[in-house]
Amino acid sequence: MRLQKFALTDAVFERSPGQDADIDTANLVDENHGGPITIGYGRYGPDQSLAQVMAVDDVMIVLQGRLTVSSGEVSVTAGPGEIVHMPKGEPISILSHGEGATTAYVTWPHWRPAEAVSGK
Amino acid sequence: MRLQKFALTDAVFERSPGQDADIDTANLVDENHGGPITIGYGRYGPDQSLAQVMAVDDVMIVLQGRLTVSSGEVSVTAGPGEIVHMPKGEPISILSHGEGATTAYVTWPHWRPAEAVSGK
Repeated sequence: MRLQKFALTDAVFERSPGQDADIDTANLVDENHGGPITIGYGRYGPDQSLAQVMAVDDVMIVLQGRLTVSSGEVSVTAGPGEIVHMPKGEPISILSHGEGATTAYVTWPHWRPAEAVSGK
Repeated sequence: MRLQKFALTDAVFERSPGQDADIDTANLVDENHGGPITIGYGRYGPDQSLAQVMAVDDVMIVLQGRLTVSSGEVSVTAGPGEIVHMPKGEPISILSHGEGATTAYVTWPHWRPAEAVSGK
């Protein structure tokens, strides 16, 4: 693999499989590129929610908007420049607010969406 | 590990070992936390440079300012919201501009600074 730069304009967003919320993801680097990690952008419409058990370690950097992420009794709200670490195995709920949100994400190992349990 | 949120105000910046440029890093999650990845914030003063051979896969998200990253004949400049992937094994130079820069980074495996070759 070589040095690469990615911008939001490079992102081809797709609806996250296994859920029907207005939440789209765009992988920029994934298992097809030969490296160990997945890199992408995420886009959340206003007031959307998603619940999943993390199949991988997922680090989300909020670029725009705010997201509230909950796991059991822990709930955090992150805005621009803030980082949320969702460790593998954790049951996670993600809630966007009225302005929606844009994120960058890095997962290890490669992102697998199969464990999404609900989205609306 | 549990769900965690990090903000710049959580960061305790330290000079990157092995170089003397005005470039500081703050690991928020590292090998002491039991997970597979390192997460942190980086801070670059104005017009600083750093050259290193990547010991790990490093994903840098620019939060503020701009950085020019070069490897061989490839050179990219990234601003806020843009992502630079520096794969393991690549010889990399990073140059900050007049306004300095703030970044978030995720590395796999854990960040190792030992291969920094120069900084000024």
